[in-house]
Amino acid sequence: MITLTTDFGLADPYVAEMKGVILSISPNTSIVDISHDIEKFNVRMAAYTLAIAARYFSKDTVHLAVVDPGVGTKRNAILIQTRRAFYVGPDNGVLALAARSQRIEHIFKITNPKFMLPNVSNTFHGRDIFAPAAAHLSKGVQPSEFGPEIKRISETPFARIVRENNMILGEVLHTDRFGNLITSFPQELLQGTRLKNKISFRLKSRRLTLSLYKTYAEAKKNEPFALFGSHGFLEIAINQGNAAANLRVKTGDKITLFRA
Amino acid sequence: MITLTTDFGLADPYVAEMKGVILSISPNTSIVDISHDIEKFNVRMAAYTLAIAARYFSKDTVHLAVVDPGVGTKRNAILIQTRRAFYVGPDNGVLALAARSQRIEHIFKITNPKFMLPNVSNTFHGRDIFAPAAAHLSKGVQPSEFGPEIKRISETPFARIVRENNMILGEVLHTDRFGNLITSFPQELLQGTRLKNKISFRLKSRRLTLSLYKTYAEAKKNEPFALFGSHGFLEIAINQGNAAANLRVKTGDKITLFRA
Amino acid sequence: MITLTTDFGLADPYVAEMKGVILSISPNTSIVDISHDIEKFNVRMAAYTLAIAARYFSKDTVHLAVVDPGVGTKRNAILIQTRRAFYVGPDNGVLALAARSQRIEHIFKITNPKFMLPNVSNTFHGRDIFAPAAAHLSKGVQPSEFGPEIKRISETPFARIVRENNMILGEVLHTDRFGNLITSFPQELLQGTRLKNKISFRLKSRRLTLSLYKTYAEAKKNEPFALFGSHGFLEIAINQGNAAANLRVKTGDKITLFRA
Repeated sequence: MITLTTDFGLADPYVAEMKGVILSISPNTSIVDISHDIEKFNVRMAAYTLAIAARYFSKDTVHLAVVDPGVGTKRNAILIQTRRAFYVGPDNGVLALAARSQRIEHIFKITNPKFMLPNVSNTFHGRDIFAPAAAHLSKGVQPSEFGPEIKRISETPFARIVRENNMILGEVLHTDRFGNLITSFPQELLQGTRLKNKISFRLKSRRLTLSLYKTYAEAKKNEPFALFGSHGFLEIAINQGNAAANLRVKTGDKITLFRA
Repeated sequence: MITLTTDFGLADPYVAEMKGVILSISPNTSIVDISHDIEKFNVRMAAYTLAIAARYFSKDTVHLAVVDPGVGTKRNAILIQTRRAFYVGPDNGVLALAARSQRIEHIFKITNPKFMLPNVSNTFHGRDIFAPAAAHLSKGVQPSEFGPEIKRISETPFARIVRENNMILGEVLHTDRFGNLITSFPQELLQGTRLKNKISFRLKSRRLTLSLYKTYAEAKKNEPFALFGSHGFLEIAINQGNAAANLRVKTGDKITLFRA
Repeated sequence: MITLTTDFGLADPYVAEMKGVILSISPNTSIVDISHDIEKFNVRMAAYTLAIAARYFSKDTVHLAVVDPGVGTKRNAILIQTRRAFYVGPDNGVLALAARSQRIEHIFKITNPKFMLPNVSNTFHGRDIFAPAAAHLSKGVQPSEFGPEIKRISETPFARIVRENNMILGEVLHTDRFGNLITSFPQELLQGTRLKNKISFRLKSRRLTLSLYKTYAEAKKNEPFALFGSHGFLEIAINQGNAAANLRVKTGDKITLFRA
C-alpha cells in the first residue's frame, strides 16, 4: 500500500499523473490519499498531517510526501526505512516527524536512474522520481538498491516545548477544518500537572481561562473551551463554532500554559 | 466494499486515519468516498447525500457515515441491517433516510469493545468505533455480535410533503454545486397532476411561473426553469447559471407548488 | 482500470453514484480520479487535464470524462479506441485532445441500451450511459458492440500556434493551483529558436522580458520568470508566489512570444 500527501490540490492533473505512474509500475498496489490540500509549500503542515495519519496504517506501508519548494535544486531525494514503514520524498523535513516517531533504521539517497522515469523534469520529481520509487518499493525492491545510505536528514521545524517556572511554552501545531486549535502540549506532559476544571493560557497577548471538557457537546454555544483531542494533544475549540476564526489564531502562533 | 460520508473535509488527516484503520483490519476491502465535504455538522445534508448515493451500490455494501456533533455524549453508536446493505454511524438521523428506503431488518447498538480500537477517544468515534465496526462487518462478522438489538432510531428531520387545496407544500432538499435546487416533490406525486408546460411555485414569498423542460439545454440563458432531475425530484435550475444564488434560495427553504 | 474526469465536485453525490454503478457492473475494476474540480461546463479545461494525465496511465485504461452542458440534447455519446486506451464521454470535444495524441483507431456511437442503466435520465448521462459503458468496456465487451462506427468527432477548441515574422502567437492553456501559467508553446517549437537567458512576451498588451530558468528555486522572491514545465510547455511562474494573480492573466488569454 502507498499513501500520498501533497500540496498539489485535486483540480490539476498532477496527483493523477503520480497515480498513473505508480499503477503502471505496480498495478496491484492500493493507493490511499492522506491529503492533497496541504497549504502550498507548507512543509510543516504536511509533516504534521503525515505523522498523525501514518500511525494508523499497517506495517510496510510506503508513505510518499511531496511538498517540495526546492524541487530541481540540490536538496536530496530520500527514502527512509523505519521499524514500521517506508517514507519517500524530498529531504526538507516533510518526512522527518513521522519517520522519527517510528524509529528510523536506514536512510538512502534516491539516485539510481533505474527506478526513475526515463526523462526526469526539473519541476515535478513527485511524478518522475518519488512515484516510481514508491511503486518499486511496494513491489519489493530492496531500499539499498535506490542509492547510497546516508546518516542525516533535515528536521521538521517544530517548536520545542519549554518549561519555565510555572509556565509551559508551546505553539499551535495545526488548525483544522472545524477551526479547532491543536496545540503542541501532549496529554502525558500535563498528567503530573493535576489539571483542574480550568486551564489558563496566554495566546496572542491575551489571557484565557478555559474549562477543560471531555466532549465538544459539554460546552455552551460560542464558549471557547479546552479538551484533549483524539491525537493526544490539548485542543482549544468552540462547540459547533470556529475557535481559530473567533480567537484570531493560526498555526504556528505561540501559546503559553500556566500551571497555576 | 465500504463507503464513507463525513463532514471532515480532505485537508486534515481525519479521513486518512479512518482509512488506515479500515485497511489494517480488512486489507482487501475497497473503500469508496461518497462525500467528505458535507457542511460541518449538517446531519440532514449527509443523510440526503447518503440516501441518493446508496441506491447505486451493490448488495452488502457497508455504508459508514459520520457527521456527529454529539460525539462522546450518550447518543448511541448503531449498525443498521437493511434488505440490501449495512449502515454504521451515530444514531442522530444521519443513517435513517437511506436505511428506511431499503427496508430496515435489524438495528444493533455497537457496544462490543472487541470491535473497537483499544483506546476510544471522546472526540473521534469515526476512527475509534465506526471505522473498525465497518471493517469487521465487511470481513463477515455477524451484525448481532456488535451489541444488543434495539427497536428505534432517530429520524432525519426532513419536511413532510403536505397537500392543501390546490397546493403542495414542500421544501428545498439540497442545492448542488451547479446551484440547482432539488425540491422534495417526487415525480410520482405530480404524475396525477397533469403538469402542463408551466408550473407555478411560491418560493420565499415570491410567485414564480416556470417552464417545465426535459433538459438543461432547452432553457434560454439566465432563464430559471423546472425539470425532473436524475434522482426523480423536481428541480429548479438555470442553464449554465446558478439558480440558488440567483433566486437567493438555500437548502431547507419552504416551497409551495400550485396545482392550478 | 477506469479514470474519471468531471465538473461535478466532490461534495454532491454525483461522483459516488457513478462509482457505485461502475463497481456494481465490474466489481474488480479499480477507479482513479483524475479531477472532479474542473470548472463548471469548462470542456476545454477538462480536455487539457485529461490529455496531460492520460499519458501516464497504462495500456487499455478506460478514460471516462463528463463535462456535458448539452446532456439530453442530440449530441452523441461516444467511445473512442486509440492505440493505447479507450475514451468514453459526450461528443463535445472533451475527449478529442487526449484521443488524438494517442492516434484514434475507431470511434463508436454509444446507442446499445444493453450497456446502459434501465432508466436513462435526461440530465445525468454520466451515471446512466457513460459509467455503465466504461464498466462493460473494462470487463472486455468489444467496442463495436456499443453502437455504430462513426468517422468524425467534435474537436477541442484550442488556439493554434501561429508564426508571424519574428513572433509566435499562442495562448494560456491552463493556470494551475500554484498560479503557474502554462502556455501553448511546446518545448520542441522553441528548440530552433536559440533561446537565450531572456525571453520576451506580450501578454495582455504588456511587454514582459523574463529570465528563463530551469527550476522554481532559481528565481528571486516575487520575480516572474519562464521555465519549461514538466509537461513540455513553456510556463510563466513566480517562485512561491502566484503568477496568474500577480499578472492578472487567466486561461485562454492570448500570449505572443518574440524570437528576437
